[in-house]
Amino acid sequence: MQENKAVKPELVGGTRDMLPADAFAQQFVFSTIQRVYESFGFVPLDTPCMERRNVLTGDDPNFNKSIFSVRVVRGTENKDESLSLLGDDDVALRFDLTVSLARVVVAYPELPKPFKRYQYGKVFRGEQPQAGRFREFYQFDFDIIGSRSILADTEVVQVMYETMKALGVPGFVIRFNTRKVLNGLAQACGCVGKSKEVFRIIDKFDKIGLDGVLGELKRKPANRFDESAVSMDEAGLELVTRFLGIKPEKSSEVLAGVKEVLGGKSEFADEGIRELQEICQGLSFLGIPEDFWRVDLSVARGLDYYTGPVFETYLSDLPELGSVFSGGRFDGLANRFMPDSNIAGVGASVGIDRLIVGMRKLGLLGTNESRTKVLVTVFGKEMEKYSLSFSGRLRQAGVDTEIYLGDGYTLRAQMAYAAKKGIPYVVIIGPDESSSGKVQLKDMTARKQQLFTQEECIDILK
Amino acid sequence: MQENKAVKPELVGGTRDMLPADAFAQQFVFSTIQRVYESFGFVPLDTPCMERRNVLTGDDPNFNKSIFSVRVVRGTENKDESLSLLGDDDVALRFDLTVSLARVVVAYPELPKPFKRYQYGKVFRGEQPQAGRFREFYQFDFDIIGSRSILADTEVVQVMYETMKALGVPGFVIRFNTRKVLNGLAQACGCVGKSKEVFRIIDKFDKIGLDGVLGELKRKPANRFDESAVSMDEAGLELVTRFLGIKPEKSSEVLAGVKEVLGGKSEFADEGIRELQEICQGLSFLGIPEDFWRVDLSVARGLDYYTGPVFETYLSDLPELGSVFSGGRFDGLANRFMPDSNIAGVGASVGIDRLIVGMRKLGLLGTNESRTKVLVTVFGKEMEKYSLSFSGRLRQAGVDTEIYLGDGYTLRAQMAYAAKKGIPYVVIIGPDESSSGKVQLKDMTARKQQLFTQEECIDILK
Repeated sequence: MQENKAVKPELVGGTRDMLPADAFAQQFVFSTIQRVYESFGFVPLDTPCMERRNVLTGDDPNFNKSIFSVRVVRGTENKDESLSLLGDDDVALRFDLTVSLARVVVAYPELPKPFKRYQYGKVFRGEQPQAGRFREFYQFDFDIIGSRSILADTEVVQVMYETMKALGVPGFVIRFNTRKVLNGLAQACGCVGKSKEVFRIIDKFDKIGLDGVLGELKRKPANRFDESAVSMDEAGLELVTRFLGIKPEKSSEVLAGVKEVLGGKSEFADEGIRELQEICQGLSFLGIPEDFWRVDLSVARGLDYYTGPVFETYLSDLPELGSVFSGGRFDGLANRFMPDSNIAGVGASVGIDRLIVGMRKLGLLGTNESRTKVLVTVFGKEMEKYSLSFSGRLRQAGVDTEIYLGDGYTLRAQMAYAAKKGIPYVVIIGPDESSSGKVQLKDMTARKQQLFTQEECIDILK
Repeated sequence: MQENKAVKPELVGGTRDMLPADAFAQQFVFSTIQRVYESFGFVPLDTPCMERRNVLTGDDPNFNKSIFSVRVVRGTENKDESLSLLGDDDVALRFDLTVSLARVVVAYPELPKPFKRYQYGKVFRGEQPQAGRFREFYQFDFDIIGSRSILADTEVVQVMYETMKALGVPGFVIRFNTRKVLNGLAQACGCVGKSKEVFRIIDKFDKIGLDGVLGELKRKPANRFDESAVSMDEAGLELVTRFLGIKPEKSSEVLAGVKEVLGGKSEFADEGIRELQEICQGLSFLGIPEDFWRVDLSVARGLDYYTGPVFETYLSDLPELGSVFSGGRFDGLANRFMPDSNIAGVGASVGIDRLIVGMRKLGLLGTNESRTKVLVTVFGKEMEKYSLSFSGRLRQAGVDTEIYLGDGYTLRAQMAYAAKKGIPYVVIIGPDESSSGKVQLKDMTARKQQLFTQEECIDILK
């Protein structure tokens, strides 16, 4: 190979390496969550990163995400081989795992229904990268497809609860709401055709206050092209005032408040109230302590997408981090493939990067760089056989053992290696030890070194 | 969303879905191997699928693989946003994990050396897909970077051995060789400048036989542009004849044979013989039974790339499958980033797809579709609370429990769901059971159903 000019070892902007300490943490979090998902009967699914572009976009002219399209090129040439090698395929990288799930549900009708699947995989976003936002990152979703039962929504909260418990997070709250209550509010206010605008304005409550919200809600169109004006009447504004006045207290009190304000005024609201009530009851029957969940009317989450309950999970000690585990109910999952099939789904996605940031801040993740229990050092070329034999015996006893593989035999370098990797024990076999059948065992934490027989050493490390 | 015309739920050619049964098998294989890698002190690394194209190609004009280049596009438009969003980055998808490893080794000099890392991830190949060859698939590599010690080569065989054992594969053989012996043969034959041609011809031994090989080796150039002619002389041809006559018997006999044919005739060969001897000795010291490994002079593996020992692993009952776990020693890993740095490495990669095919054929992989132990059925809306409470109790007892989430309550559908997912137990709580505090437990394998108290049922399932 001709390699005269050095290439810079640089990453693509918006991507990152996960070095061992971070990759370890991610794997601990991943495998813990996986165990919880599987305990509920969620099964793994794996789909390609490359999908047909029309599968991803649904051929929807309103689809305007920036995505990565993919072409075949040969080597360092700029000639595009796509036409010959990809055929008519217009190919791009998936931006989430939900579209692939929808494709799978339609393509393999034999899958048991409800289809409970989890998936862990890379997704790709073409947007300009920002601090903490990447162009390539992992998603870890679980979804229940083909069930309209409120038991499925209840299970989403239960999975979130058990996941956070399994991860060892002491304080967290799962907050949930339903889009139906918000739709009900719009309906009760006589603005059902302007629901989206109503939500958009109400969502600004924290920033612009009640007067600001009411002001925007009653605004009349500036001209006949002004579609964002809601023109809410006085009765509507009064309802909104009362709705926003419901205190975010105990779930039962919030529900009582919503019932008082909207009860009997909108079939959407009545259905939403019933949904929330049933989830609350279900969680009680399941024995999930109320400290960990709460009906919260401020939870809204991408309302364009969700159609029923929506869920968010906050770390009690780091609420400013935002939700680390979010989801909701959606309809028409597979409509782009089977129009009017209206397959229902409900699920959630762990914000794994954010969760790890939070767990690190809370000291819930170790800083381990290796799983090795003991490093067997090598005293010199002719002593290799003793180190090899003893490392073989340690491994046969089930001890996670490394033998030092570096070029050179200085003990200093070998000790530094063990220290850098956080290996807790080091074995030294010099000429004296080898002839007596003994080994020196150094405890790196206690900084103590002692002579043992090989059997004693194995027993200690086992 | 406008979704009038149905999009076909199709995959990109050369990619595939891994449905739950396959994804389960893959995860079992992955986590078993991961456990072995980590027990040797290999640490995880995760790098992006998207890399700069010059990182991947090394700006090498001879690089002629077909790769996937990546551009940013917006939505369904064909306008290319690359220039504004990717800046000067010319981006492509990685075709292996080794280039990223090299980039990481150079970019993060603080990593402990020798750097022992494993990585599991998708790689992408632009070639025309064929049966069993995909354009997007997983690789699962482990490598030891920064060690020239033969202990590192020995450890590669040891890791392969322990991996196959951990996977429960009863019969397998790890065959190894070293490029140095083959270089030595070329040198001893006076054809060191034509090593590649010599190997290429010798590699055809199984197909064209000894006479064919000798015929091609002695061929003289047809004209002055014919660089493939080796023009080996009679002495050389005799050496090749004797070399190819070494019987593939016990490792010690093969080594003795090589020594007899090439010993003292080439420094390459002498070094190679010493390497192979040391690996064999090391494996004996480690206590790895000789049934599972063998020096095999026919192992050649992409000799352009490897510079020392090369390794292959065959399933004894399925040799036709080819090697399921292969690797070798390479030099100059990071030379494209640091010319003349000549960082050494040795490692191997599991052919995870092929291995799974083999393990399935040998009946070593289950066909499980779910990890659920028991399905708690729901008798009707008003009985949900009993099913929820009992499922909560089962989960608290550590039993992997699903509650049926389908939209109806027919027992038939619920039983069919359990059967389809391979769930071994089903709990039924009807009005009689709920009032008596009892449950029906059906053993799906034995097809037996019996009434128990809730406590008894929990004890049975625990």
